[in-house]
Amino acid sequence: MNKDEPILIIGAGLCGSLLALRMAQRGFNVKLVERRPDLRKVEQDAGKSINLAFSDRGMKGIALVGLQDEVKKLCIPMHGRMIHDTQGNTFLSPYSGRENEYINSISRPGLNMLLIDAAEALPNVSINFNMSCDYVDLEKGLAVCTDNESKQETKLSGQVIFGTDGAGSRVRKSMSRHRKFLFNFSQQWLTHGYKELTIPAGPNGDYLTDKGALHIWPRGEDMLIALPNLDGSFTVTLFLPYDNSDYCFNNLTSVERVKDYFNQEFPDVVTLMPNLTTEFFNNPTGPLGTIKCSPWSANGKTLLMGDAAHAIVPFYGQGMNASFEDVVEFDAFLDTHTGDWQQIFEAYQAHRKKDTDAIADLAVDNFHEMKEHTANALFQEKRKLEMAFESNYPNDYYSKYSMVTFKASMSYHEAMKIGRAQDKAILNLLNDGHLPEEMPLEKKLALVKKETQKMLNAANILGD
Amino acid sequence: MNKDEPILIIGAGLCGSLLALRMAQRGFNVKLVERRPDLRKVEQDAGKSINLAFSDRGMKGIALVGLQDEVKKLCIPMHGRMIHDTQGNTFLSPYSGRENEYINSISRPGLNMLLIDAAEALPNVSINFNMSCDYVDLEKGLAVCTDNESKQETKLSGQVIFGTDGAGSRVRKSMSRHRKFLFNFSQQWLTHGYKELTIPAGPNGDYLTDKGALHIWPRGEDMLIALPNLDGSFTVTLFLPYDNSDYCFNNLTSVERVKDYFNQEFPDVVTLMPNLTTEFFNNPTGPLGTIKCSPWSANGKTLLMGDAAHAIVPFYGQGMNASFEDVVEFDAFLDTHTGDWQQIFEAYQAHRKKDTDAIADLAVDNFHEMKEHTANALFQEKRKLEMAFESNYPNDYYSKYSMVTFKASMSYHEAMKIGRAQDKAILNLLNDGHLPEEMPLEKKLALVKKETQKMLNAANILGD
Repeated sequence: MNKDEPILIIGAGLCGSLLALRMAQRGFNVKLVERRPDLRKVEQDAGKSINLAFSDRGMKGIALVGLQDEVKKLCIPMHGRMIHDTQGNTFLSPYSGRENEYINSISRPGLNMLLIDAAEALPNVSINFNMSCDYVDLEKGLAVCTDNESKQETKLSGQVIFGTDGAGSRVRKSMSRHRKFLFNFSQQWLTHGYKELTIPAGPNGDYLTDKGALHIWPRGEDMLIALPNLDGSFTVTLFLPYDNSDYCFNNLTSVERVKDYFNQEFPDVVTLMPNLTTEFFNNPTGPLGTIKCSPWSANGKTLLMGDAAHAIVPFYGQGMNASFEDVVEFDAFLDTHTGDWQQIFEAYQAHRKKDTDAIADLAVDNFHEMKEHTANALFQEKRKLEMAFESNYPNDYYSKYSMVTFKASMSYHEAMKIGRAQDKAILNLLNDGHLPEEMPLEKKLALVKKETQKMLNAANILGD
Repeated sequence: MNKDEPILIIGAGLCGSLLALRMAQRGFNVKLVERRPDLRKVEQDAGKSINLAFSDRGMKGIALVGLQDEVKKLCIPMHGRMIHDTQGNTFLSPYSGRENEYINSISRPGLNMLLIDAAEALPNVSINFNMSCDYVDLEKGLAVCTDNESKQETKLSGQVIFGTDGAGSRVRKSMSRHRKFLFNFSQQWLTHGYKELTIPAGPNGDYLTDKGALHIWPRGEDMLIALPNLDGSFTVTLFLPYDNSDYCFNNLTSVERVKDYFNQEFPDVVTLMPNLTTEFFNNPTGPLGTIKCSPWSANGKTLLMGDAAHAIVPFYGQGMNASFEDVVEFDAFLDTHTGDWQQIFEAYQAHRKKDTDAIADLAVDNFHEMKEHTANALFQEKRKLEMAFESNYPNDYYSKYSMVTFKASMSYHEAMKIGRAQDKAILNLLNDGHLPEEMPLEKKLALVKKETQKMLNAANILGD
């Protein structure tokens, strides 16, 4: 495999910059192209997911490039979901019964800058900001780009082109619009949109609510969440239907309506958000979509990775983690299939796609779990039992959430299959009164395992 | 509901012309617009599915407009699959054990002309041929069209617009490209393409092979089929992978290769096709795709129907039948939800979409069944047993094929659910030797029913 002829990476977001760094560490000449200005030199947009959940699968990617220590400094551990009811009462629902398992809030631009700095420090990486990819010629393997300042068109080529240009990927659109390329594509939207708001830091940069948790105000059809930032603030996200609801984006059109809605549903947070209505009307409302497609590669010359290949909704906190895991999985195929890009691309997709499909589906499921079930008594009983299993039998029990989030050696697809069966098993057993208070925990665990196996067998009977 | 203000129908194919006729019979003023020239005045393209399978669900649509007798004259009954092996041996696998159940081969242009004639005969229908819809303004509910001869742009409006403009629907594209319209869309291609060929009529217009069957040459990965035409010819369709196969469209590039392939795989048909290689290289190779989308309607002003809303692969012979059933189902909602188009459109989709999703999935399944399983011993044993059930217990047993094709009172979704469980049940029982020759048929039926129920219960356990 020729390491001198450059490889071209379109998109220097989280996935693209990690990939660039890794490929450069492997000795490739890397040309990285980014539509936006250098994020280290401009102020960040308000209202565009400035923090994210970062967990074990993401850390595998960071470990691959040796940046664990630097990344840890950006992390704020969140040990569970802090559930807020309409009276302002709160309780913590831990993410795991094992003490060392937690997720982190991390700044998207902070992490992105760290990766870009690290890539740029290598002699074999060049980065072009303000350079938009208009389309990719899939046969020739070249990207037609426009410099946003000079408006000059440039044709960039590389031995291969990676499309890491996010959910709205131009590289993917080049595949989807190519008349002769049979591109399987699906795009599914939730009926909800999202809007980002802020709880500013307190007087001395202190946190106005608990910084060690992901806060959720579950309200059935709608939901507010908040994640801490290093500066003491929280980024708050409202998830709300676009229409067909008493309160929805299409009818929250006046300051009074917005105040009424927040006072009624989220009274404990209103006092912490002095700029609520200004932000509500200034910040954009974004849609929430899932994109799946196939093939990810064309002619052994172009490969989609990260959100460009599999955009998912944010409710499992796995978007960035899945993209970083893409880089880890792809990297392994560079060792096993040396020399032939087409083989590498196809083997990578054959191995990886069922997992990104799985996390896409799990993320949609979790939307319903978060907004509806976290406030539900049966669900809470289930979580309590799972925490007891995990803390007393740490090697024997993993909840679905733990398998997906913390058991990074298990594939998403496997986690989904076992996790769904286990969830149904516990909910059925609790619902039917088969796990009474007085039953010893060990017996409960055995019963849950047996019932889970029954669910998995039913799936087998059906050939799923 | 105002019947004077015209309703606009984009696309005068099978679905659009049936819909136009029905709406006109209901008293609406109908403007029907069609991109192509009047098919009654031009010669038909070669190689574009000139005959189709027509069965009970399609007949419901024809009965709705009272054209049964005229349509029956166009029908050639096909009682089963005539399977051809590589030695030229044949055997008939009936479609049903009930005598009155068969499908028909029908001419697409013949049926289309009949519907257009009938619509045009009504005073409240106007038809514009050679008029292309460029896009639909979803807010205003008007269609921007271009006259293909004068190149003049026209804006057409109607109280509502129906998009019946087929799999490549411009009306659907107007939804999919609208920035603020959250349009769920999926497009999935098979790895196979298709090409149409011909067995011409014999000297006196006689049929050179049995006209009472749908002929199949199943070859595992590829397949040839043939349906009779009224003039004594057969339309033959080759289904073949695009690539990655010993013989595939991408490597059948010379007359010799095509001859070798046909001589090896379909020797009995080669002698019947004097124009084989000419047709092979003159006729286009088409892709085979499934399109699903949602919502089908926008702003209570535009509704997609037929292939525009749900393009399916041809392997269940249900494409036209599903589109005609759309018209029947839609028509019923005009009675139950008078006056409000938006309510009618939404109620229609809520009721109908699970069924068009089901037939889309069933049609893909049937591709594998036809090319692989029809030649398989276990599959043949299963069909033999099902034929015995159907002929001896005509009211108690319906195969999946019969439910989908002949039991037009059962929805596609229900047929899929029960039919899949039943297929698995029989195959498992046969495979495990639980249905020995000597067992009385009645006992076999009871066992199949019991095992089917077990499959359905397993699906219930999983909440499917």
